[in-house]
Amino acid sequence: MPRLKLTLAYLGTNFAGWQIQAGRGADRPRTVQEVLEQAVERLAGQFVRAHGAGRTDSGVHAEAQIAHLDLPGNLPDINWQRALNSLLPPDLSVIDARMADDSFHSRFSAIGKEYRYRLWLDKNFIPPALRDFVWHCGPLDQNPMLEAAKLLLGEHDFAAFQNRGAETESTVREIFRIDQCALPLPGHRDLCPQHQAWVFQGSGFLKQMVRNLVGLLVTVGQGRLKPADVPGFLRERNRGPLPFPTAPARGLCLQRVLYP
Amino acid sequence: MPRLKLTLAYLGTNFAGWQIQAGRGADRPRTVQEVLEQAVERLAGQFVRAHGAGRTDSGVHAEAQIAHLDLPGNLPDINWQRALNSLLPPDLSVIDARMADDSFHSRFSAIGKEYRYRLWLDKNFIPPALRDFVWHCGPLDQNPMLEAAKLLLGEHDFAAFQNRGAETESTVREIFRIDQCALPLPGHRDLCPQHQAWVFQGSGFLKQMVRNLVGLLVTVGQGRLKPADVPGFLRERNRGPLPFPTAPARGLCLQRVLYP
Repeated sequence: MPRLKLTLAYLGTNFAGWQIQAGRGADRPRTVQEVLEQAVERLAGQFVRAHGAGRTDSGVHAEAQIAHLDLPGNLPDINWQRALNSLLPPDLSVIDARMADDSFHSRFSAIGKEYRYRLWLDKNFIPPALRDFVWHCGPLDQNPMLEAAKLLLGEHDFAAFQNRGAETESTVREIFRIDQCALPLPGHRDLCPQHQAWVFQGSGFLKQMVRNLVGLLVTVGQGRLKPADVPGFLRERNRGPLPFPTAPARGLCLQRVLYP
Repeated sequence: MPRLKLTLAYLGTNFAGWQIQAGRGADRPRTVQEVLEQAVERLAGQFVRAHGAGRTDSGVHAEAQIAHLDLPGNLPDINWQRALNSLLPPDLSVIDARMADDSFHSRFSAIGKEYRYRLWLDKNFIPPALRDFVWHCGPLDQNPMLEAAKLLLGEHDFAAFQNRGAETESTVREIFRIDQCALPLPGHRDLCPQHQAWVFQGSGFLKQMVRNLVGLLVTVGQGRLKPADVPGFLRERNRGPLPFPTAPARGLCLQRVLYP
């Protein structure tokens, strides 16, 4: 059973996330896993399960989601990247495909993930090319956001930053890094101060955890919460009553899965 | 009649270009000019003609198309940028709005334009976020392209680079500048060598002229034409028989209109 490792990029806008969902025919939400498995089945001649490194939620993008599949042993040698890309829809691409060792598992071998969340800080307009990729916040006070971010680093019980619907044993996670930077506009090289990225690198993230962290940071940047409120939120065990929103899915992108 | 100057950004994908077209109701193609004029009419209480600096073709994007309108004199003072953006669809935004002198005319005051054309040079995949914004060429030999580009600089009769359907008195235009550079991927700061921009600055461009120039350069980059062929093409007076394609609209963006 040769094991194929795929690196996938997708626009989350028209996907109900990574994980295949229940439902019949046209009623079943369109998911990355199912669209990928359908393309693999056409090439392999039989159903093959695709194992993703992590679920992305509905509307969340990926630049380098990792998946692995165990191919039937009797297939001819083909260029899987080109063959799959010829079958996949425009919003899903295989950016790398290679055979992997049997010991490699997309999810269990991962030691961390990197997500990026993009904000647009001009209150009067959004460049149309960014609309599906940013949260339109208006101006934010950066220093308290950076101060709050520092307090989130390290190992904490992030139960209060997990939305309902998750199944997980422990809610303790470690955040290695939170960076903030300006980005260029699409098609440009010069940095645009209103186009901002927040990068989160950690051992793993709970359901909607990055979007809740961004919701907190933006609320701090708006002056409606203070960095000093962060330790209290970390002590909470319940997302429900906390006074900040879950940032919209469209700003979020799974950037990288970290392996040893 | 106060004159309003607008700077507009749009995604060309779902527009049949700038200029309003004939047709009844739902049969009339969706154009930037008409969508803008409808929004202005809702705010001004009457129809006002929007004059664009230049037509963009169906599918061509703009980052800074310039338009002017003569508003009725009796309107209350409003923030036109915010008011228009609250009415415009997601693929069209006013990125600047200001009152202009009566002597300003979006088209007749312009002394040049800058277009950008984006290519994607990896043959195996396209990042989904670039799909509507690049021509997927595969690898190209850069040096002959740069050599051919040099031969296009300056004043020439570009009749052979004009597609049918244009009405123009002279087909002589001056190209001030052709630059080529790598760009980052959307959401990144680091340059990605497979993501390339060609920037064209000139006194004006004939119908589909930039797309024909790019079609020529890419064909040179593929080794199917030589830089030495360029002078002969410039001597032609007829686009029809020339052995290079018109590059697809989706890679092209009106980047800037130049005023004195």
